[in-house]
Amino acid sequence: MKEVQIAILGMGTIASGVYELIGQEGEKILHRDGIKLNVAKVLSLEYSIDIPEEKKVRDIEEIVNDKNIDIVVELMGGTEPAKTFITKCLTAGKSVVSANKMLIASHWPEIEKVAKSTDAGFYFEASVGGGIPLLRTILDSLNANSITSVMGIINGTTNYILTKMAEEGRDYADALGEAQALGFAEANPDSDVLGQDAMYKLSILASICFHAKIPVEFIHTEGITSITPEDIKYAEELGYCIKLLAIGKRRGEKIEVRVHPTMISKNHPLSSVRGSFNAVFIHGNYVDDVMLYGHGAGKFPTASAVVSDIILAAKTTSHKYMTFQNENKVPGSISFENDWQSAYYLNIEAMDKPGVLAKISSVFSKYYVSLSSVIQKGRNESSVPLIFVTHSANEMSIKRAIEDIKYIPEVTAVKNTIRVEN
Amino acid sequence: MKEVQIAILGMGTIASGVYELIGQEGEKILHRDGIKLNVAKVLSLEYSIDIPEEKKVRDIEEIVNDKNIDIVVELMGGTEPAKTFITKCLTAGKSVVSANKMLIASHWPEIEKVAKSTDAGFYFEASVGGGIPLLRTILDSLNANSITSVMGIINGTTNYILTKMAEEGRDYADALGEAQALGFAEANPDSDVLGQDAMYKLSILASICFHAKIPVEFIHTEGITSITPEDIKYAEELGYCIKLLAIGKRRGEKIEVRVHPTMISKNHPLSSVRGSFNAVFIHGNYVDDVMLYGHGAGKFPTASAVVSDIILAAKTTSHKYMTFQNENKVPGSISFENDWQSAYYLNIEAMDKPGVLAKISSVFSKYYVSLSSVIQKGRNESSVPLIFVTHSANEMSIKRAIEDIKYIPEVTAVKNTIRVEN
Repeated sequence: MKEVQIAILGMGTIASGVYELIGQEGEKILHRDGIKLNVAKVLSLEYSIDIPEEKKVRDIEEIVNDKNIDIVVELMGGTEPAKTFITKCLTAGKSVVSANKMLIASHWPEIEKVAKSTDAGFYFEASVGGGIPLLRTILDSLNANSITSVMGIINGTTNYILTKMAEEGRDYADALGEAQALGFAEANPDSDVLGQDAMYKLSILASICFHAKIPVEFIHTEGITSITPEDIKYAEELGYCIKLLAIGKRRGEKIEVRVHPTMISKNHPLSSVRGSFNAVFIHGNYVDDVMLYGHGAGKFPTASAVVSDIILAAKTTSHKYMTFQNENKVPGSISFENDWQSAYYLNIEAMDKPGVLAKISSVFSKYYVSLSSVIQKGRNESSVPLIFVTHSANEMSIKRAIEDIKYIPEVTAVKNTIRVEN
Repeated sequence: MKEVQIAILGMGTIASGVYELIGQEGEKILHRDGIKLNVAKVLSLEYSIDIPEEKKVRDIEEIVNDKNIDIVVELMGGTEPAKTFITKCLTAGKSVVSANKMLIASHWPEIEKVAKSTDAGFYFEASVGGGIPLLRTILDSLNANSITSVMGIINGTTNYILTKMAEEGRDYADALGEAQALGFAEANPDSDVLGQDAMYKLSILASICFHAKIPVEFIHTEGITSITPEDIKYAEELGYCIKLLAIGKRRGEKIEVRVHPTMISKNHPLSSVRGSFNAVFIHGNYVDDVMLYGHGAGKFPTASAVVSDIILAAKTTSHKYMTFQNENKVPGSISFENDWQSAYYLNIEAMDKPGVLAKISSVFSKYYVSLSSVIQKGRNESSVPLIFVTHSANEMSIKRAIEDIKYIPEVTAVKNTIRVEN
């Protein structure tokens, strides 16, 4: 039996979940893992749950200078003062557990360097995929593989919105409003719906999959705000569903990383991930396809990941550090691909005149883009929708084809374009 | 950098996969995990791939007595001589990695005792779920939770057959024949189709989930041989699909464990697990629902799990052992539930006479079984199919109701009964 003394920084939703979990499950954790967890100090300005007075502290130095504290759990969020506090604790030789995706995506190698200098541990399972056993599973259980691709639904808010749009025919604004009313989306939903939250998470996830630091600046990021019920209806008709995917692929030393709405086949396991659930689909060169599924957010699922990190930090006698092929912002031998291969869905509005389809098709063929499906809805109206799904082609070729198509006189609008993963 | 010397026992498909994987991925594993893997000896009677002569051994003592061998990988299968060989190697202080589900399900505490006596490690990730990161994920990443239920598709052969039946309307014999032709089923398919393979795996999986040894004798096991295209058609109509599920549930000190064909909602993530893929759906009291999905068998996916165990065994300085609440065949405070709660699908054939439905319904109500769906197909024939889905009720009550229904004069047959999980 080993007793560890823990300090928690912050007392928001996740932190109170961690405090409650340790209180309620502590005896069983002691039996199962031989570790007795004791929350000795909590640093916060406000306390939403009952914490004994003697545990409350207001000054980080009380934690940094307390020789009895073994593990510090940072759940404040944001860059500062979290970064300063983490650095102080690691410098003092305390292991740190954090769920702070933005901080880790932006300052990870820097923080690891401090941890290494004092042999302290730095763990952040909860920063991506909430309760899903994800980062450690990749590092410890898929480590016989070189991972060649990762595709994830790693933002629950957008998946909730897209699920409501698909299953109940709602439009974007309506589904967003419901998500906000139910607490699945924030009052200002930008970070989620514009793809930033997924971008930070993909930076961490892809870095771990590919053993190379992926700075967020290299991640192409698009949100879901332009997805319409019409797109979802056509996707359905074509056998696809639309998900906000975070995608990373590696071929040799070339890496591509992108977050955008994506059509995937209804037979793909990711398409069965509904509502606020998250899932990550990984391809390794030996294990082939693996998917990990669960709650990507929420008080107790996230606390579950944080506490498993605490147990690991407590059990580990010699902490491991990442062996990146490159440093932050210094790609080294790694290069980032912009002209990736992707198939495309195009929703075009054109005048109902003979020869339009031929004109559009000839533009595609000019750029060596071949077509997989065409739907022409012949209505008795002046303009008709034309839906195309291309085969896989270079991103740049597709973009150029779209520009040319816009100049065809009979084309009244390119209403939307969405990438397709097969 | 740490170099480890490995001996492999057996040279079948998985073993050759392990040998090839180490040869091809060894450099990258060294970079990623700091471990240099060297296969020093291979014990086999036959070699399907090229192995240098100096590595081939015929006598287990050459491995047991070789002080340089750190890790022994047992891939012979079967109980003997595998058990004797493993025991000898553990006694000599060598860590053992095995994928031998039958041996582990039947003799695990006994083998762990030997391992403990010499501080050797005993690892068997590949024994359940093939390449899926499963057992270690439960132990190391879900360890903040008490797991209350586990439901798995852990036999690829039966899932392949049921998928073919559902998607292509084949009958059982036809789908089995195709599975055999493609190598997904063996010439004698009994161990798979009668549920035994899943039973051994569930014994290991549930023991790890519940921290209590689950002897195979306590697992209620039924196979898929009685599933008909008609059942699948009605399941579809009711919004379900049929899977062979391995189910474990724990409530306090009561555990229920069972393997049988099961109807699950088409919206359940397990219903999207098609073909020979496997998946395990876990409910923890804090993390809520988690699913782990991938290849449950096959040369390289299984080798991926074996090699991750080898790396773990090599990195670990102080091996961990299971902390079961009970010993093998000695349940201790644990008891096993036979009268579990389950909903049921019943396919009944009855004469097309007035009052039949009332008679059957009154039997259900006598045993306090309430109904969730009834489908009566009124054809102009002497007998009509009547399909019932009950709400959840005690297994024993349903069984008694079925017995009574058989005695209703107008009931010509109870054609099939299948449990339903909601």
